[in-house]
Amino acid sequence: MKSWTNEFMAETDFSVTVLGCGGALYAHHRHPSAQLLQIEHHKFLIDCGEGTQFQLHDFGLSPFAIREIFITHLHGDHYFGLVGLLSSMSLQGRNKPLTVFSPKGLKAVILPQLDALQRDLSFSLRFVEVPTEGASRCIFETDELSVWNLPLKHRIPVSGYIFREKQRERKMLKEKIQEYGLSIEQIKAVKRGEDLIIGEEKIGVEELSLPTPPPRSFAYCSDTLYLPHLAKALEGIHLIYHESTFTTEREDKALRSMHSTAAQAAAIARDAGAQALLLGHFSGRYADLTPFLEEARAVFPRTYLAEEGKRYEVPKVRQNTMDS
Amino acid sequence: MKSWTNEFMAETDFSVTVLGCGGALYAHHRHPSAQLLQIEHHKFLIDCGEGTQFQLHDFGLSPFAIREIFITHLHGDHYFGLVGLLSSMSLQGRNKPLTVFSPKGLKAVILPQLDALQRDLSFSLRFVEVPTEGASRCIFETDELSVWNLPLKHRIPVSGYIFREKQRERKMLKEKIQEYGLSIEQIKAVKRGEDLIIGEEKIGVEELSLPTPPPRSFAYCSDTLYLPHLAKALEGIHLIYHESTFTTEREDKALRSMHSTAAQAAAIARDAGAQALLLGHFSGRYADLTPFLEEARAVFPRTYLAEEGKRYEVPKVRQNTMDS
Repeated sequence: MKSWTNEFMAETDFSVTVLGCGGALYAHHRHPSAQLLQIEHHKFLIDCGEGTQFQLHDFGLSPFAIREIFITHLHGDHYFGLVGLLSSMSLQGRNKPLTVFSPKGLKAVILPQLDALQRDLSFSLRFVEVPTEGASRCIFETDELSVWNLPLKHRIPVSGYIFREKQRERKMLKEKIQEYGLSIEQIKAVKRGEDLIIGEEKIGVEELSLPTPPPRSFAYCSDTLYLPHLAKALEGIHLIYHESTFTTEREDKALRSMHSTAAQAAAIARDAGAQALLLGHFSGRYADLTPFLEEARAVFPRTYLAEEGKRYEVPKVRQNTMDS
Repeated sequence: MKSWTNEFMAETDFSVTVLGCGGALYAHHRHPSAQLLQIEHHKFLIDCGEGTQFQLHDFGLSPFAIREIFITHLHGDHYFGLVGLLSSMSLQGRNKPLTVFSPKGLKAVILPQLDALQRDLSFSLRFVEVPTEGASRCIFETDELSVWNLPLKHRIPVSGYIFREKQRERKMLKEKIQEYGLSIEQIKAVKRGEDLIIGEEKIGVEELSLPTPPPRSFAYCSDTLYLPHLAKALEGIHLIYHESTFTTEREDKALRSMHSTAAQAAAIARDAGAQALLLGHFSGRYADLTPFLEEARAVFPRTYLAEEGKRYEVPKVRQNTMDS
């Protein structure tokens, strides 16, 4: 657990585990992009560079609870591990269905490889195409959360992803149900946050129920050119992961290769009002990552470096501390 | 360097470095199949499971000298690392051409992935289809060596490979050139091993030249059911790598999944009269590999376990010790 969570509250059930923090070329034992996101009982894999199945295994993480995988784009360091993960899960008899979200083209390169194995997958596999242009929109939803695409700008079409918890219902005070003799409909209204009118009396929702923590959120932004307007789309996101392939010293190289610097990633987090920023996708040119942390923290202090095998918690925040 | 080489001679320029010794499922830090074979200045990659590029990097081995890659079959643990290796070499600006030998179907699954990168490879890439039935035949040749396919039997078409040095020319004794006033043609004949007739005198090749070591050879046999007839095709091979996914205890499972046991691999090496046997492709069911070594050595004492990052030398053998 990273120390920044201590600034907020205790360990939570909303966390990101980094499986790969390296850039396009493997170096310094930094593997290509992959992160395991856990929100309550949901587990999502975001990107799946080569070796992701080994990283999951080495860190003691099972892929079997993953029901959705989100691939940002079709550069190899973001998806070459997918076919291996799929076929290994099949060899192990997975039966839960799996959905893979990605920009156009992934299905066409994955299915021929699975066909060549001459063995049916043990589970149902579905591909969903994600738009890489236009406004961010909801592409997946459950009762507890929603996932949104986030068009980015790189050498090929790419979509980041935003994961948002939904506001949980207020917690009804049981004694008030009896006191006012509330109906099921009235209870539902209170849980939704509505005041009640009983007879001629207005009874405030605050008297009848307790607030629940505000919903948490995580955004995954990789790979991308620095896009200042992104801060608007990310406003209020709790934890932002933003690629930082280079430091400012190589800002021109970042521009040419359509990547970002650590300072640029930090500017996004600052302008979005994020609670914390996670940096990753570090170029193999850097053995020491301290310069990334230093230049980013000068812009946005609550910046952390993605380290493989580490789990980064997004804490529940009490309603009244939300604006602090 | 493995100790078995000490039984022969000093370090040589014919060696196999194991990059992955695991079976289909990653476990106990054993990676999927890949070996780097060096014969003089030639470097060949045999199989290329997921993560092979990382293994090469971690063991300080450059892929740039590799001009030929040999893939045995289209199960993922033997080739899912190929596309990553190709695209990384391209990102690094490789310009030497590369040829990939494999059973039918590889090109059709690799090229779409490279196309999706929307960036031309920096080098020329050629695919050659290798037969998986019929007799072993020469599929690649240089002045110094030849490579032969070796049809095996598994759940999908598979070819092993045999690498054979050619017999080097005898070493001419310079003083004899002057003594007999030999022509270029005569020297060439002596180097080929022929006696000379000068005037009416027959001068034996032994007097004119020194012998060179006999050619060395290596066979890679994976994945395959135990094929007793294979010993005939492998007769006299110096080093045999043969898969041993299971131990005898699970011989029935080996049969069903069309794999071999350690004892079966050892029987092949014994019947072929090999100098040494390397075992690999160990199932993830086994944490401790000692039982593989023990049961194989009971059949063929010069057996060794493939260990990742270790280099196994095939020593030059003096002519007169060849039959020992």
